[in-house]
Amino acid sequence: MKKLIKGLREFKSSYFSANEELFEQLSHGQKPRVLFITCSDSRIDPNLITQAGLGELFVIRNAGNIIPPFGATNGGEGATIEYAVQALDIQQIIICGHSHCGAMKGLMKLDSLRVEMPLVHDWLKYAEATRRLVKDNYSNYEGEELLEIIIAENVLTQIENLRTYPVIHSKLHQKQLSIYAWIYQIETGEVLTYDSQKHAYVLLQNQLPTSEIDETLFNPPLGKTEQ
Amino acid sequence: MKKLIKGLREFKSSYFSANEELFEQLSHGQKPRVLFITCSDSRIDPNLITQAGLGELFVIRNAGNIIPPFGATNGGEGATIEYAVQALDIQQIIICGHSHCGAMKGLMKLDSLRVEMPLVHDWLKYAEATRRLVKDNYSNYEGEELLEIIIAENVLTQIENLRTYPVIHSKLHQKQLSIYAWIYQIETGEVLTYDSQKHAYVLLQNQLPTSEIDETLFNPPLGKTEQ
Amino acid sequence: MKKLIKGLREFKSSYFSANEELFEQLSHGQKPRVLFITCSDSRIDPNLITQAGLGELFVIRNAGNIIPPFGATNGGEGATIEYAVQALDIQQIIICGHSHCGAMKGLMKLDSLRVEMPLVHDWLKYAEATRRLVKDNYSNYEGEELLEIIIAENVLTQIENLRTYPVIHSKLHQKQLSIYAWIYQIETGEVLTYDSQKHAYVLLQNQLPTSEIDETLFNPPLGKTEQ
Amino acid sequence: MKKLIKGLREFKSSYFSANEELFEQLSHGQKPRVLFITCSDSRIDPNLITQAGLGELFVIRNAGNIIPPFGATNGGEGATIEYAVQALDIQQIIICGHSHCGAMKGLMKLDSLRVEMPLVHDWLKYAEATRRLVKDNYSNYEGEELLEIIIAENVLTQIENLRTYPVIHSKLHQKQLSIYAWIYQIETGEVLTYDSQKHAYVLLQNQLPTSEIDETLFNPPLGKTEQ
Amino acid sequence: MKKLIKGLREFKSSYFSANEELFEQLSHGQKPRVLFITCSDSRIDPNLITQAGLGELFVIRNAGNIIPPFGATNGGEGATIEYAVQALDIQQIIICGHSHCGAMKGLMKLDSLRVEMPLVHDWLKYAEATRRLVKDNYSNYEGEELLEIIIAENVLTQIENLRTYPVIHSKLHQKQLSIYAWIYQIETGEVLTYDSQKHAYVLLQNQLPTSEIDETLFNPPLGKTEQ
Amino acid sequence: MKKLIKGLREFKSSYFSANEELFEQLSHGQKPRVLFITCSDSRIDPNLITQAGLGELFVIRNAGNIIPPFGATNGGEGATIEYAVQALDIQQIIICGHSHCGAMKGLMKLDSLRVEMPLVHDWLKYAEATRRLVKDNYSNYEGEELLEIIIAENVLTQIENLRTYPVIHSKLHQKQLSIYAWIYQIETGEVLTYDSQKHAYVLLQNQLPTSEIDETLFNPPLGKTEQ
Ligand SMILES: [Zn+2]
Ligand SMILES: [Zn+2]
Ligand SMILES: [Zn+2]
Ligand SMILES: [Zn+2]
Ligand SMILES: [Zn+2]
Ligand SMILES: [Zn+2]
Repeated sequence: MKKLIKGLREFKSSYFSANEELFEQLSHGQKPRVLFITCSDSRIDPNLITQAGLGELFVIRNAGNIIPPFGATNGGEGATIEYAVQALDIQQIIICGHSHCGAMKGLMKLDSLRVEMPLVHDWLKYAEATRRLVKDNYSNYEGEELLEIIIAENVLTQIENLRTYPVIHSKLHQKQLSIYAWIYQIETGEVLTYDSQKHAYVLLQNQLPTSEIDETLFNPPLGKTEQ
Repeated sequence: MKKLIKGLREFKSSYFSANEELFEQLSHGQKPRVLFITCSDSRIDPNLITQAGLGELFVIRNAGNIIPPFGATNGGEGATIEYAVQALDIQQIIICGHSHCGAMKGLMKLDSLRVEMPLVHDWLKYAEATRRLVKDNYSNYEGEELLEIIIAENVLTQIENLRTYPVIHSKLHQKQLSIYAWIYQIETGEVLTYDSQKHAYVLLQNQLPTSEIDETLFNPPLGKTEQ
Repeated sequence: MKKLIKGLREFKSSYFSANEELFEQLSHGQKPRVLFITCSDSRIDPNLITQAGLGELFVIRNAGNIIPPFGATNGGEGATIEYAVQALDIQQIIICGHSHCGAMKGLMKLDSLRVEMPLVHDWLKYAEATRRLVKDNYSNYEGEELLEIIIAENVLTQIENLRTYPVIHSKLHQKQLSIYAWIYQIETGEVLTYDSQKHAYVLLQNQLPTSEIDETLFNPPLGKTEQ
Repeated sequence: MKKLIKGLREFKSSYFSANEELFEQLSHGQKPRVLFITCSDSRIDPNLITQAGLGELFVIRNAGNIIPPFGATNGGEGATIEYAVQALDIQQIIICGHSHCGAMKGLMKLDSLRVEMPLVHDWLKYAEATRRLVKDNYSNYEGEELLEIIIAENVLTQIENLRTYPVIHSKLHQKQLSIYAWIYQIETGEVLTYDSQKHAYVLLQNQLPTSEIDETLFNPPLGKTEQ
Repeated sequence: MKKLIKGLREFKSSYFSANEELFEQLSHGQKPRVLFITCSDSRIDPNLITQAGLGELFVIRNAGNIIPPFGATNGGEGATIEYAVQALDIQQIIICGHSHCGAMKGLMKLDSLRVEMPLVHDWLKYAEATRRLVKDNYSNYEGEELLEIIIAENVLTQIENLRTYPVIHSKLHQKQLSIYAWIYQIETGEVLTYDSQKHAYVLLQNQLPTSEIDETLFNPPLGKTEQ
Repeated sequence: MKKLIKGLREFKSSYFSANEELFEQLSHGQKPRVLFITCSDSRIDPNLITQAGLGELFVIRNAGNIIPPFGATNGGEGATIEYAVQALDIQQIIICGHSHCGAMKGLMKLDSLRVEMPLVHDWLKYAEATRRLVKDNYSNYEGEELLEIIIAENVLTQIENLRTYPVIHSKLHQKQLSIYAWIYQIETGEVLTYDSQKHAYVLLQNQLPTSEIDETLFNPPLGKTEQ
């Protein structure tokens, strides 16, 4: 805790002092461009890995970057999504899973959680579509390899869930919303993104020379291509 | 989106490259010391304001930094808390509200949300204790001043809610858990913390010379003093 | 009621007597090929309009042919879908809306239902994505024309919801499940189906000479083309 | 699927063409006399077995012809009942179970469903009163015989549940609603009905010469005799 | 509070001292004969009005003596009923309403409660069948007279709800359970009971000379006569 | 049942006759000073043990004197608390556990209840914080001794839960509400109360000579000392 207090002081004396104008401006309102949904895992710092500035990422974080279907829970996920899309008019949503995710490991040993961590057990119900898909289709995988598949499939599951929210459903129809599936790999510092045409995850940041990076890389984003 | 991709490349080539050993180490597991619960607001970057490193903060973010009482929702908040305390053995929890919070503004005009943003409306039920307290006790305030009171009281409300979780209840009894109420002020870059002996929020980072900052500043934290 | 009893007698003496072998066979088990989800409306008789025989259609009927997202309700819809796909291995699902649907009319005057028919009001929450989409995108329509759009869009909404069920999600991944959007038009006795390539409903039964009707007509079905 | 399309064409060219006036009339509204609640089982065709015409039966179908008590679920059953009684002024309700019901078989091996078909497992909670009654009172039965008892008792359980709905409760008080318990026997094509005076199911359609069939057969119907 | 402490002392020195053997015996277990369900109203003392001794009445008390249908809530009512019937083998249940009931007054002005007392408002959903019945059938009553009807009908509504619990359903089938509807009239100190044959409430305690009071007075109790 | 009828007659002829004025007065309204929350156990008679008169105690009784956190259930507990504090302006709440509590025994063998008494099992979720605390901190206790600890801790757990209700939260802030933890000991006829300064339960009624009993004995009550 001492460390955090020193950090607060350091932040104030260095970063804040050097950017007072920005903070003055931010105090009048936020206008983020992206809703960034990721895991609570301490190894993920959304602003660091995207080098996004303050005010750019509206962030939801919970164990497993899970978004239950519309109406399925009365927790904060749905309300925060609604606020992001309706009140802030955000038009880009990234669901970002990550390698070595503890929640996804939990999905592999669900029964043992029932007694030990009952709330986690119940929460993973909203990744049940992931568990089922992997159990039915990847029964020949195990260990690290299986975990990677679970992590990758779960982001797609959560995007399906996200699509059931009324504000999302309507914005997708208007083609005013794009949804991206990301996987952040802790050990390489890289991000994979789901390419809905190749039906596969592809490496995002090293794929093209900087000059050529443009929206086509993502096209079609998941939200827009379907239906 | 192009900006984020460039950011990812920059992150990889600079920060990641300079800290490869850290990432290698992080890929083997996380051992965060603090559960940091804050709003989804894009103007908050927990790692930036506390200068905490990767792997130090386990983070929950939703609209309004709200933690419903145990059993009240089946969203991600309870599961993530359980995971933090049970699986990761975290012993310090910070609930961090912030100035100019849009969710807390919503609490001031709750009825208008029913139609416009029904999920946000319903979610604010878990800040109803805040709304009620402020309505009953601060009827002579309005505008910015009222909003500040709501923001400050809401963090305390959410700590009450947090105390109803079995893992929290047990750890508090063992004095193995401390809970802190913070308010981050965007315009000053400073953090207020609730001093349970003074029954008031006090400025955290500027209060003492660096050399004197120690745990006593927070003592007794909210979690330990009560009951 | 007298009429129904006479009907039962007539059924027994005519249809049953003429098909005793079929009933004997059916008494040993069912093996339906299609899950047919439609409205409770008395003007729809699934077996009549498709001329399907006994044992061919597994049927869910409720007001508005609504399928809430996975986890959103604890009513019969989810269980019946699970039973159809898991226990009966059904691989084709039709969601069939219909012209002049009373439930969809209710969606146009939702507020008035809150007091008058509170259960219907609450049930229509699972068509909220339809209502929202139409409100945002078809504000220049009204009356019969608007109702037609609502009916058509609602079938697509319910297909989105259907996709969140674990068994559905997994079977779609395996390409072992096809989902079709139908609209039955009472006044013409015809059925429209959603063509996911044309992004439009097309007339199903009169489109091709009988000889040419084959699976390509529906290809790609909604369930298989997406993601 | 080809078969269904051919069926649609055949329906249009034969039945529809021969009854255009009826369809024209139906397109202006429905006025069904009976709410028919039955299982999703593909071997049941309500219109066929009762020889009821289009527009005569308002139909709810789910696995097990289950109607959860008022307030117990937020699925379609309650809303559809409310719509039938309140909006359509239906005054006769038939709950129709059937022989060889798969859902009722599930009730006999409930534990095995927990993992295999969790939604079906949870749904059968609303037949728990049936399971309990049979377990306490018919412990000496097994196999087919036990299944028949379960099927028969379950229809009575669901009528108890039905009676808790406000619209039902009020209409029963006014003696403007009759509720009938039916069991359709696939192998004989016959229907049993519960005779509340004999406290037993009796064969419905063969009991009397046609000329004598009248309402007294059913009197007192379940809804009216009780309380 | 002083008064209560003095009361505790007085109880210990007088009643307890005079009945030490009873308390010794009670400390080894309870074997109540009756489950007594009544309102939280401070003017009702179940043991006083029935002159029942310690250990004779197992008591549920909440605002309005309401028992939601099985599965409709996860509050204490269902669990306590289950415990009474299953663990304690209680075979007699009394639901006892009372004159001047504040909760039932609330049912007459339900809308005004939505904002003022939202939890009470929501709780009265389980008396909605009462409200509906009275609204549909007693529209020509008002004030005190209307309140009396509501109170009387509500006890019958709650008995309908009670009948949906599995343990109740099974015990009624076995004729091992009797359910009684009572109304306690504060101003006369008398109790009315529902006579299911007369379809009316009748005065309970003054009806017969003491010598003739026997079980037939209540026969058939509500639980046993129906179905 | 005969016994109860005789009791009613006796009550009317003796107690009621001797206190007609009181009943006349009570019929015009209640003004209780205390909300008394206790177990349904037949061995507890709140009015007897406190010698409180009619009209003095507003009473909630359920299995285990459990108060789920705000929002966690839709049963009667929350509504009744709201009514007590909001409508009746009660400013003192006693949660009174008791020795030999069957519900608390259930907490010691929770798993065995899942099948046998599922509603009781689920209800004890709201005493899970008690179970967890005791499991983590008193693993060296068993039998009667363990049960006593569970009973004592559970009252404190329920007070934590109580504090999450908006009306409670607001009144505590205004210091207009006191909450007391009591344990009634059947075998001694005595009551223990939690002394929040000593962090221990102390004997309530014998502690001081009558003349010295005053409010300071309870000060600070649990509700007022915290936060
Ligand atoms: Zn993770
Ligand atoms: Zn905020
Ligand atoms: Zn319809
Ligand atoms: Zn069936
Ligand atoms: Zn009352
Ligand atoms: Zn007890």
